[in-house]
Amino acid sequence: MSDTMQQMTLAARPVGAPKDSDFALVEKPLPIPAEGEVLVRLHAFSLDPYMRGRMDDAKSYAAPVPIGGVMEAGGVGEVIASQSPHFTVGDMAFGMFGWASHGCLPANQMRKLDDTLPTSTALGVLGMPGFTGWYGLTQLGRPKAGETLVVAAATGPVGSMVGQMAKARGLRTVAIAGGADKCALALEKFGFDAAIDHHAHENASSLRKAIAEAAPKGIDIYFENVGGKVFEAVLPLMNTFGRIPVCGMISGYNAGALGGGAVAEGPDRLPVLWRSILVKQMSVNGFIISNHYDEYPTFLKEVAPLVATGQLAYLEDIVEGLENAPRAFMGLLEGRNIGKQIVKLT
Amino acid sequence: MSDTMQQMTLAARPVGAPKDSDFALVEKPLPIPAEGEVLVRLHAFSLDPYMRGRMDDAKSYAAPVPIGGVMEAGGVGEVIASQSPHFTVGDMAFGMFGWASHGCLPANQMRKLDDTLPTSTALGVLGMPGFTGWYGLTQLGRPKAGETLVVAAATGPVGSMVGQMAKARGLRTVAIAGGADKCALALEKFGFDAAIDHHAHENASSLRKAIAEAAPKGIDIYFENVGGKVFEAVLPLMNTFGRIPVCGMISGYNAGALGGGAVAEGPDRLPVLWRSILVKQMSVNGFIISNHYDEYPTFLKEVAPLVATGQLAYLEDIVEGLENAPRAFMGLLEGRNIGKQIVKLT
Repeated sequence: MSDTMQQMTLAARPVGAPKDSDFALVEKPLPIPAEGEVLVRLHAFSLDPYMRGRMDDAKSYAAPVPIGGVMEAGGVGEVIASQSPHFTVGDMAFGMFGWASHGCLPANQMRKLDDTLPTSTALGVLGMPGFTGWYGLTQLGRPKAGETLVVAAATGPVGSMVGQMAKARGLRTVAIAGGADKCALALEKFGFDAAIDHHAHENASSLRKAIAEAAPKGIDIYFENVGGKVFEAVLPLMNTFGRIPVCGMISGYNAGALGGGAVAEGPDRLPVLWRSILVKQMSVNGFIISNHYDEYPTFLKEVAPLVATGQLAYLEDIVEGLENAPRAFMGLLEGRNIGKQIVKLT
Repeated sequence: MSDTMQQMTLAARPVGAPKDSDFALVEKPLPIPAEGEVLVRLHAFSLDPYMRGRMDDAKSYAAPVPIGGVMEAGGVGEVIASQSPHFTVGDMAFGMFGWASHGCLPANQMRKLDDTLPTSTALGVLGMPGFTGWYGLTQLGRPKAGETLVVAAATGPVGSMVGQMAKARGLRTVAIAGGADKCALALEKFGFDAAIDHHAHENASSLRKAIAEAAPKGIDIYFENVGGKVFEAVLPLMNTFGRIPVCGMISGYNAGALGGGAVAEGPDRLPVLWRSILVKQMSVNGFIISNHYDEYPTFLKEVAPLVATGQLAYLEDIVEGLENAPRAFMGLLEGRNIGKQIVKLT
């Protein structure tokens, strides 16, 4: 067993899209767990859009990563030393260990994993992204059979959960995805009723036309996880009593339509939105999944069996090696990954 | 008993604020109730901001009044002829009889009134406006003791209900009202903890400063019934998990910030709102009270006793005579009334 560990740290705050020099790989001595702590050798960690937000020094719902600090991430791995009665060597565990080869956390900040399922599922389909999709759809979207749902980033771990859960509840499901390949995946792997390639539509009104054709009875639930052009396209198509869960992950994108603080000049669409909310009696709910983990056991109880039996499909996009995490993360922000982006450690 | 009745009809669609020539008083024979119908001699009818919306030919949640049609209104009066077993002559009843001296409706579109309370209360504090305030606050605002509520038009029948219900539930209540007299009323008659005169603030940022001082712990519930400057002032002061019930009545105003279809050029504030909803995890719910009358008995059960015992204050602004209704309505749209605007018939 090596007595050093590697961590990927934030070297500089990115301006726009992150680049290689914004990250630095550091090596340091392996920590020795104190009383109550557990040391884990990671098998994999998760890359998620929200991490982009943590790289900025902006006021948000979570504190930024300090310069020189370890990039934040959820990871899974094997316990290699324990000073807690709750974990023994060999246990598999989840925790916010960061972009790193190893992590040391108090036992009460970790979760033991069910070892009947691949451990990587704790990062995607059964982890934060899957839970985000399930929570937003079931608790805020209030889906009813016969209704129509639209979700973007539909082959991602949030969108694919939303689509499959909605489909199982009898809704018509419309996927928005970037590119023909992802649209094919949305239809074939995740069972969406229709899929629209947003790359094929330059502006919101062209996209709107395509969505309107795919959703002839209008939209009852728009699960918002991307913002910008898709939201603009969808708003006029919302039905009376429509629901829009607004998911926390969108704020992590590179200063896009919603991520940035800049205010564009042009038509002020706020009154239009405000009037739509009223006239259509819509319910718009922002949520940040970390505040809803009391519902996590309910989620696991419903969804883990579906994963185990193969009734619920999921996709993982795996890159190997901590040193390759920055490039994989940049690709994720550009939508180049297919499915849940995971970094495996060897 | 006269054999004619008077009605106030829509003579022309107003451009901006309505004027005298947009209305026409007509006289016609008193109808004879058909099987199942009931004829009522009105004692009073209600004037409400939503009626402004009905004068336009715009697509909205309710059909417009046709040119030459009777202006819409809820009214209370005495049954003078009945072809229904559910009503007998002398009963007091509520119905959508319009701006009129008499009305004839099917019995199933009318409601018999509890005659232990003044019948005019069925138009205000115990009618649609009071119910709107109660429903929006209790069902969508989800008030919790110790929180802070802001409501505009605070001496009106919606705002004064919202404020008093919130106060009774242990919230700090902040009134926005137009003029020093209304502010004094908000404090003294309706028990608000603070009152801010929006006439004293030229722009949203000045108003925001005053609200911030009155709401030192931020705003948990903003009951939206006016839009425009107040909404703009309030948004940055909303707390995490803030709730904004958006009340149907605002759409009735003269083409203002929210009522009109025009889109102003300038900074596009939609992304700012969208980001606020997410980052603050807010819940924004549009509602139109006519879709929620299944909750009306619950409302009456809670609120009618409070009105009967005087624990709940209300104000009525009474004008006499159908011919004076248009002027009273114009005043209402300009905020010149004090309390619920009612037209009494003599």
